[in-house]
This record gives sequence, C-alpha cells and structure tokens, in this order.
Amino acid sequence: MEVSELDKYGICDGISEIILTSGMKNPNAAPIGLIRKDNRVFIRLYRGSTTYENVKQDEVFAANVTCDPLLFIKSTFSNLEDEDFKYHPLNSKSIPLLKNSATSVIFICDEIKHTKQAMTAEIIPMGAVANDYLPRAINRGLTAVIEAAVHATRYKLTGNNEFLDLIDRCLETTYKCGGQREKDAAEILLNEIDEIKKHVDGGKDTE
Amino acid sequence: MEVSELDKYGICDGISEIILTSGMKNPNAAPIGLIRKDNRVFIRLYRGSTTYENVKQDEVFAANVTCDPLLFIKSTFSNLEDEDFKYHPLNSKSIPLLKNSATSVIFICDEIKHTKQAMTAEIIPMGAVANDYLPRAINRGLTAVIEAAVHATRYKLTGNNEFLDLIDRCLETTYKCGGQREKDAAEILLNEIDEIKKHVDGGKDTE
Repeated sequence: MEVSELDKYGICDGISEIILTSGMKNPNAAPIGLIRKDNRVFIRLYRGSTTYENVKQDEVFAANVTCDPLLFIKSTFSNLEDEDFKYHPLNSKSIPLLKNSATSVIFICDEIKHTKQAMTAEIIPMGAVANDYLPRAINRGLTAVIEAAVHATRYKLTGNNEFLDLIDRCLETTYKCGGQREKDAAEILLNEIDEIKKHVDGGKDTE
Repeated sequence: MEVSELDKYGICDGISEIILTSGMKNPNAAPIGLIRKDNRVFIRLYRGSTTYENVKQDEVFAANVTCDPLLFIKSTFSNLEDEDFKYHPLNSKSIPLLKNSATSVIFICDEIKHTKQAMTAEIIPMGAVANDYLPRAINRGLTAVIEAAVHATRYKLTGNNEFLDLIDRCLETTYKCGGQREKDAAEILLNEIDEIKKHVDGGKDTE
C-alpha cells in the first residue's frame, strides 16, 4: 500500500489525531498524533504507556480515524470496552481495530529509534479498512474537548494549574458549540480531572 | 425533510460550522455557525453582510458541509470564484451550492426576527445533496486556522490587539499540525490581517 493512498482513508498531510489500537493479546486503545510529511509517516510513543509496550513488542498497530469525542476521551484515560474492538487477520495473528471508526489503517514499524523518554518510528501502511461513515460539519466543541484532553494529560504529568485554566476555556467552547456527545465527553473529562487533582494534591501533601 | 435526517448530511446537534451560499442572482458564500438544538435549527446573520441581504430577500439558502480550510478562509474575507458554485433548482429558481462540499442542505426561513444588529430565523430543511467525499482524521491545524479566522473578523470589527495574540497562537498550531492546505489557508489569512491592520492603523490616525 502506497503512502499516497492514505488520503482515501483520512490520514492526510500534517498531524492526524487518530486512536491507535495495539496488542495482539490484550487490545488497547489510545489517542495519538500520527505525523505524515513528504510522503512518509511517523509516530512517537512515550515510555510507560501500554501503547508503547505493545508497539515495542509487536511492531504493528492500527490507526483508527474517527470523530467520536467519547472514543477519544475514554481512551485517553482508560481502555475502551471489549465490545469497541474488532479483529483483523495479519500473518496468522490478529490486530485489534475500532469497530466504529470511519477507517482503520494497519501499520508496521520500520526504523525504530529509542530515546530516554520515547520511541519514534517510521511506519509503513500494510492495509486498510473503510467502514460506513457519515460526513460531519466542523464542530468547534468537538476539537475543544479533544484539546482539553491533551491539556489534562499534561496537567496529570506536571500538576501545573495553568493547564486547568486552559481546560476551562476549551470546555466553555464545548458546552457552547458541542452536541450531546461532546458534552457527555466533557463530563467524563471533568470527572477524570477531579481524580487527577486528588493525586496532584495528595502528591503535594507528601512532599 | 425531517430535521432528524440532517444527521446523514453532517448537520448534527450543536453548532455546525458550515459555508452558507445564498443569492439567486449573485451567488455569495460565507462561513457561519448553524445552531441545531432540540430538533430545531436556527441561524443568526449580522446586518451589513451580503449574506444578510440575500437571505432577507430570498428567505432561502444552502448550508454546505466541508472540511476544506481554503474554502472557509477565502469565503471569510471575500467571495469564492464562480467556478466554486453549482446551482440547484428550487421552485423555478435556482439556489447556489458549493461544488466541492461533502453535502449541501437547502433551508427556507421561518419565523424571522430582526434586532438592531442582526436577524435570527428558525430554518426548515427542504432538500439535500450528498457528494462524493473522503473521511478525514481530526487535524488540530484545521480547526485552529478556522478559529483564527473568527478572531480576525473580531479584530476587524474592534481593532483590539488582543485578537492578534489569539490569532498567533492559533496559527502556531496550524503550522505545527496542519497539512499544506491548512498552511496555504494560514498564508491567505495573514495577508488579510495585514490589510485589516492598515485600516485599523489608518482609522486610528484620523481619529
């Protein structure tokens, strides 16, 4: 499969926010930015995540294209349900894909490099699945809740309150512009942030 | 056509960022947020725009669903080219649609209310067209350049430099995450802002 064919599956030039599914034994899903530049595709995975461990071991994963805010938010903080996955055969094994994605593209890793904090890899598309899918107008509430999730993961890492302000601003847009699914995702995000706050505050108490 | 059918054409619950085409005689295109709530759909159009004049006169328009940043940015600051439009028959007249949209939905206005600055209307879907389209992964650079355009129109109205900072922050995301089409849209936006600055500065000199 040529890299240029990825256009058809929604993975275009620039950074595509996709949900990466990995793990031949225990399927895992996590949102990630996939970089396509000059007809090459790359990922960077940070140490300590299940995705990192799975991809390091199997050197294969799927990039699932979806606009569903609930899938993004749920997979940011925990794993998805078994029923969210389906399986695609690959060389006598099977790769987990998201059942309800618009498309899923299977990649293998080439040229893996390890740094202290992360692994980077050039990735090669091996095959793709296109599901039924409906177009959707741009909704500022959708991207805002995904931005808020990015800030939440940074807050979790750093405990820096500035991220809480950024999250508030994003979710203001989500409550103003989003539909019910975006608002449900925002609720889950707010609950997760409450949990993170406990650990951040707890961490501070014991310092 | 039922409001619930709009899901199929990408106009879901919440605020959909669409490109509104109007004008039975001289076609015009402008980006706008279309509000769908509790199975009703509304628009608000500000006085002084071609869209306002067209919709006030014809009481009919099309909402075009697209993720093309160039169509959004170009139609924010000027009109699109003749070749960007196509026409759809309606009651012995014809409505302009965008040729390259994913979908186009024709609405008529019901319950128009006029205020000092704007008109608001409940709008009723009359028919829809679905074109060939490809799915696209969420790209933060795409929404960022559209957010930047919203800030630019506010800067044009107010001359408030705070909007320039917000635009810078958005375009940083566009240059980092966007593809070539998002970057081209950002270039057009920056040129437009230079033009607006001249008027803002010029206006200040003569005060």
